[in-house]
This record gives sequence, C-alpha cells and structure tokens, in this order.
Amino acid sequence: MVPRMMKAMLLTGHGGPDKLVLSKNHPVPIVEPNEVLIKVGACGINNTDIWVREGAYGSSDNPDEVASFGDSPLQFPLIQGADIVGTIATCGQDVEPSRHGERVMIDFGIYAGEGEEIPSHDYIGSGRPGGFAEYVAVPAENAHTVESELSDAELATFCCAYITGEHMLRRTRVGKGDRVLVTGASGGVGSGVVQLCRAKGAIPYAIVGAGKEAAVRAIGAEGTVTRGCDNLAEAVATVAGDAEIDVIIDTVVGPVLPDLIEVLKPGGRYATCGAMGGPLVELDMRRIYLKNIEIHGASQGNRTDFAAVRDYALSGAIRPLLAGTYPLSELGRAQEDFGRKDFVGKLVVEVD
Amino acid sequence: MVPRMMKAMLLTGHGGPDKLVLSKNHPVPIVEPNEVLIKVGACGINNTDIWVREGAYGSSDNPDEVASFGDSPLQFPLIQGADIVGTIATCGQDVEPSRHGERVMIDFGIYAGEGEEIPSHDYIGSGRPGGFAEYVAVPAENAHTVESELSDAELATFCCAYITGEHMLRRTRVGKGDRVLVTGASGGVGSGVVQLCRAKGAIPYAIVGAGKEAAVRAIGAEGTVTRGCDNLAEAVATVAGDAEIDVIIDTVVGPVLPDLIEVLKPGGRYATCGAMGGPLVELDMRRIYLKNIEIHGASQGNRTDFAAVRDYALSGAIRPLLAGTYPLSELGRAQEDFGRKDFVGKLVVEVD
Repeated sequence: MVPRMMKAMLLTGHGGPDKLVLSKNHPVPIVEPNEVLIKVGACGINNTDIWVREGAYGSSDNPDEVASFGDSPLQFPLIQGADIVGTIATCGQDVEPSRHGERVMIDFGIYAGEGEEIPSHDYIGSGRPGGFAEYVAVPAENAHTVESELSDAELATFCCAYITGEHMLRRTRVGKGDRVLVTGASGGVGSGVVQLCRAKGAIPYAIVGAGKEAAVRAIGAEGTVTRGCDNLAEAVATVAGDAEIDVIIDTVVGPVLPDLIEVLKPGGRYATCGAMGGPLVELDMRRIYLKNIEIHGASQGNRTDFAAVRDYALSGAIRPLLAGTYPLSELGRAQEDFGRKDFVGKLVVEVD
Repeated sequence: MVPRMMKAMLLTGHGGPDKLVLSKNHPVPIVEPNEVLIKVGACGINNTDIWVREGAYGSSDNPDEVASFGDSPLQFPLIQGADIVGTIATCGQDVEPSRHGERVMIDFGIYAGEGEEIPSHDYIGSGRPGGFAEYVAVPAENAHTVESELSDAELATFCCAYITGEHMLRRTRVGKGDRVLVTGASGGVGSGVVQLCRAKGAIPYAIVGAGKEAAVRAIGAEGTVTRGCDNLAEAVATVAGDAEIDVIIDTVVGPVLPDLIEVLKPGGRYATCGAMGGPLVELDMRRIYLKNIEIHGASQGNRTDFAAVRDYALSGAIRPLLAGTYPLSELGRAQEDFGRKDFVGKLVVEVD
C-alpha cells in the first residue's frame, strides 16, 4: 500500500525560503532493518528549521560562517521537519511487525548509544530526512506510541520545543516553588517552558513582546514584563514583588543578557537554547563568579526529556498551543508567518 | 594575659600599597559572646586582599567603578587577611571555656544561617577585621581545631585558595578519572586545584607561565601547556592525547576564554573564581548551547568545602605549598613579591 514516490518539501541549499522546493515525485525512503516508515500526519515548525536553512549557526573560528547545526555539512536536497506525528506504515525486518499501524510521536534525537546522553547534532530533519513529506523513515526506537484524543497537529506541537525546554528545566533543577523568569515566552520553546514550569509547581514570569502579555498570562505566566523596557530589574521587581528569581530560561540572549544576570538571585541558575536576539555577548565574568551563578547551554534533549514531555502531553498536564496549521505545500508561507512572531505557541504543517 | 593594644597592618583606603600602614598601637578587638579572640600565628596572602585594596571588583552598573568585594562599602581603617591560623586567647561568654588555648584554623566565611549556603561576601578580612594583626576576633564556629605537625605558616596556605578550589571542583562534580584543565596553575588557587584533583583521583593538566612547567608537574600536573601558545587546542591535544577535557577550572579568564570553551568536550563543565586576565569577555552563546556547556561562577566556599580542605590538609592528602614567609611589618613587600607571580604556591605573613 506504500507508494514508491511521494510529495516532499526539498531544501535545495542554504539560503532564503526560495531554497524550499516542493517535489511531487520524490522517492519514498527505504527502511533499514531497525527502522520504521512513518506516514506523516503532521509536522511542527521550529526556529532550527530556519536557522539550518540559513546556515545561521556560525563556527568556532568564524561567527559569521554559513554553518548548519550538525557536525558535518548538510547533504542537499534535504527534507527538514523534526516534530513528526503519524502512523507506522512499514516495519524494518528487525522490528516487531505488530507495530504496523501504530500511532506514533517521533523523538527527533539521533542517539549514538544507550542511556541518558544528549543525542548527536544530526537530528531527524537535519542530519537525515525529516517530516516535511508524506513519509519518513526513522529508527524504531524513536517512534513512541501515543494514545490520545489530540489531533496529529496538536501532538506535533510538543516535540522539539518542549524537549529542549524540559532539558533546560532539568539542568537548572527547577522544582516546586521555584520562581522562573522566561524570555521569548510567546515562542515555541518559551511558551512550552511556561507550561512545563506550571506542571512542575514552579512559578513562571515571562518577558514578551508588547501586545502578547495577556495571552502569555493565559497559558500560565504569573506576571509579564514587556520586552525592551527601560529598567529590567525594576520591571521584574514590579511583577515578582519581594520574591527572588531562582532561575532564568532564556531563548533570546542578545545585549540584555548582563541585565538578566543582575536580576537572578545569588547562586541562581540560567539556561539558554538559542540566541535570536544576538549570540555574541560581552559578559563581566566578575558578576558571574561574585554571585555564584550557573550558566547552562542546552541543545535538544535526551530520552528522559522526551519521555517526560510525552507523559505531560498524554496526561493533559500540558495542553497543545496550536496557533495555526498549513498544508505541506505552503511551508514557505508558514515560515513567513512564523518569522513574524505575532502568535503564541506553535505552527504545524499537515500533510495534505 | 591579652594586652589592650596590638600591632596591626591597617588598610587606610582604596589604592596602592601605600594605603597599608603599620600601627603598633591598635586596640585589641573585644569579643562578642559567641566569638573567640585568636592570637594570630600566621596569615596567608590572597589575590582578594589586593583586589579589595584596589577596589577592583567593579559594579554591575560600571565595570570600572572602585568597588570592594563585599555587599557594602568598606569601613576604613580595615585589617585584611583571610587565612588565619593561631590559638584561642579568649572565649566569649557563650563559648565553652575549655576551648582556651586550642590551636585553630579559621574558616573566613561569614554565614548568615545554618547549612550549606555560600557565605556572605563580607568575609573575615574584608567585611570585618582579619588576621594581618596580632589578634583577631572571629565567630567561635569559624575557629576549627587543628592537630597537625605542620607549622602555622604551612597551615595558613590552605584556607581561601583551597576552599575556593574545592567549591569549583564540587560544583563541576570532579571525580575519579576526570580530566581537568587548570589555568593559572602556579597561583594559589590553581596550584591548590591541581593538588585537590589528584586527591580526588582526577587527572589535572595545567596552563602556566613559561618557566613554571616543571614546578607545576612536580605538584601533580599530568602535563602542562605554556600560557600564550599560538594554538591552545593543539597544545592541549599534545599533552592530553586522545583524552577529552571534562572540566576546566579557570582562575584567569581574559580573551582566551572562547578558546578554552572550544577545548572542552561537549557537555563539559567550566568554573571560574577570578579574572586577573580580564573580566570582560565576548562569548558566542551558540558555542555554549550547541555544546551543552556548563559555566559556574564560584566565590569562596561553604562549610562543607572548608571541612573537606581541612581533612585533606590534616590527613596529608594535600601538602602545603609554602613559597615564602614575611613578617607582618613587611606585608607591603610580600604583596609586591606576590604580584610578580614568580613562585608556585602561597606566600604567608607570620606575626612577629
């Protein structure tokens, strides 16, 4: 029943949205023995799709170099798309055949071994083909059963952003009662972190662009600070009162980072997973050591993070923030809308 | 038997060594009920003495501001000196009188409460008078019994530097088999960290100034890299071979910090406690998050760190690196020698 050719959105090189070309006649992947073929129902959109397309990750030698996320250069054409939900259409020869037809959510991490390590940078949708297509082959261990009344598009909101958020909250040991300041709180990771904080009994405060304050309070923020305010410390004190900020989860970075460090309590923890506000920052390391601050860089997440996110999603402890759906053929338009950041939550492609 | 007046080295204001003035007629401190008066035998010299004198800690608003280490401005004249060893000469009314005559080593941290918190910045020798004097009053809980064949000057090498080092090794979870790269490895903290690594079964590599390589290998470094080499990554690979660097303990900071981060393995841990190489550093935060790096700022240490250092010192697991002793009256000359950094280990003042 699986056709030989499929529709797929091909990234043909580093550059702008014009590098995305829809093919209606791309070969359906062949599964390896330990893999399953997924008939894609929906696939979420992430910043990393765009940064990989642009080659915006720089290199250690040259911050301006066009470089992808992975450890080696991309192979074009590439099918991107990390947040895949669908059903198992074919099982590789080493996979239990009874899994055929299973509804699954995909962990996009490519793991080199067992255990709790962080996966390689060559995630599904970057180092190997992803879900912006009718079919995708993935290692069977990455395909996790889901039983849920949520739609494929709703389930596709949860993967990359929430796993990365869970990773940051694990590294910074966020638990009950912790006060957590979240930047970029209307974005995919930021809004997920606000929800995950509530699920853990922590108290999230949010920094958001003007006009999104009410929407971010509605998803769980205890209070909001509008981005670009003159005096961050005063603005945070106004919403948090006498409470100290235990943890900062920063998806933005940029020149405000030193002010964020000032807002953190002595001994406080900070984590970041992205730097759309600008990755190059001057820090006064005295402020870091005199205050006994922890800074955690976090990329993707591990198996434990995926399992935690799936449990939260299936139990209803966090609810999907589906801000819009687009047919696969309109991925370019979806990414344009994504870039305008005038929504809260996630945009998702449905395979039409 | 305690006189009313004593000899003390008074810091009379922020500035150069000329701000240090020897008084031969300074009042002996009065002990509070929970304090003991220490007849000082020896007191170690630390970078923080000089940075506090200079007011070199900057402020969050102005990196160039003359600012002391503590949370409030210093009260001049101030007696500095954090690494105090001596005997109990007077017990406050709430202290067990049998402690009179006890030989003690002083934890310089001023603790606001019980438990494992980091002490306030107003340590003994900065926020309250220290040990560059014949007598000093300290909280009785800070005076820890020592039974040792080591001299007072030898014991006075262990406090501030080793506690700070132990704090960094605790925060970065250094244990058996970890490969640890130590910068400033001939200095007080750096040389202590090399020894503490060995005591924990970790493998220290050292970055040191030219000419000090053999001395730092002699105290335990597995291999050395000479500071200022052209290609840090290559130089480290030459001494460490295929082994990855798990942890960096950096007492120097400065413009080499991004190169240090490159040398660290993915998921590696970094800690710093001082920035004599320059505190203002531009970091590419992508390199921090893509490699899942941890950065720990560490200042002083807590009760557990002090206890660990005392145990290592009294058991002989680490041995004193006493590079020179000076009479109290020659503290200015000692600090000049200290600033030349042409020794390995610690300089100590003996009260003459």
